[in-house]
Amino acid sequence: MTIDFDKSGGLVPAIAQDAETGLVLMLAWMNREAFDETVRTGRACYFSRSRNRLWRKGEESGNVQEVREIFVDCDADTILLKVRQIGDAACHEGYRSCFFRRLDKDQVTVIGDRVFDPKQVYGKHPV
Amino acid sequence: MTIDFDKSGGLVPAIAQDAETGLVLMLAWMNREAFDETVRTGRACYFSRSRNRLWRKGEESGNVQEVREIFVDCDADTILLKVRQIGDAACHEGYRSCFFRRLDKDQVTVIGDRVFDPKQVYGKHPV
Repeated sequence: MTIDFDKSGGLVPAIAQDAETGLVLMLAWMNREAFDETVRTGRACYFSRSRNRLWRKGEESGNVQEVREIFVDCDADTILLKVRQIGDAACHEGYRSCFFRRLDKDQVTVIGDRVFDPKQVYGKHPV
Repeated sequence: MTIDFDKSGGLVPAIAQDAETGLVLMLAWMNREAFDETVRTGRACYFSRSRNRLWRKGEESGNVQEVREIFVDCDADTILLKVRQIGDAACHEGYRSCFFRRLDKDQVTVIGDRVFDPKQVYGKHPV
């Protein structure tokens, strides 16, 4: 099975979904190295576009993602991880899911519940 | 609420998730026009990178996606749609989800169930 890393310049989107609840936690990016490390270690490793380096999810907060299953889509250019999210929050803002804001016609509603205060977790590196 | 369409050259990834079952159906792309049409019409409209035009999901197969809720992530550069998938299959290969293949260490396993035969649905345009 070959992932098509070339289509989007070396990176493919990777969706992380909570293996138990089905909650979509986040979307990040993987290059081949990140994907291979994820497969090898069983922990989600992404590629940070802003930092331009591998991003071992939870490396700072401790909120790693244990990978239960890996799926690839029909075009082989998107990855879906079913994970166990350590610390219960995938989002650096402290929410379970990064998708904590719902858009309605004329307003934004925060629907996610905050699990931690980012200031406590990322004390040395303000977000 | 402003979606950051500029970060990735005008397109943001959009995840479609079955609103009832939580199954992640697919990932596609949206430009601003596709996003605005989705909000306005309540049906998922994407931007096809291969065809370089708006792609009204289901325009050929009839398998449209009725949008129940729209979420945006913390960075405002990824969209999550909760949808009702008409025809029960989001994938052009006839599976409920495009993520019908699971990757294990040394093999690929088809885990999705096929809802339709693509040859019947896309008869005029072989896939």
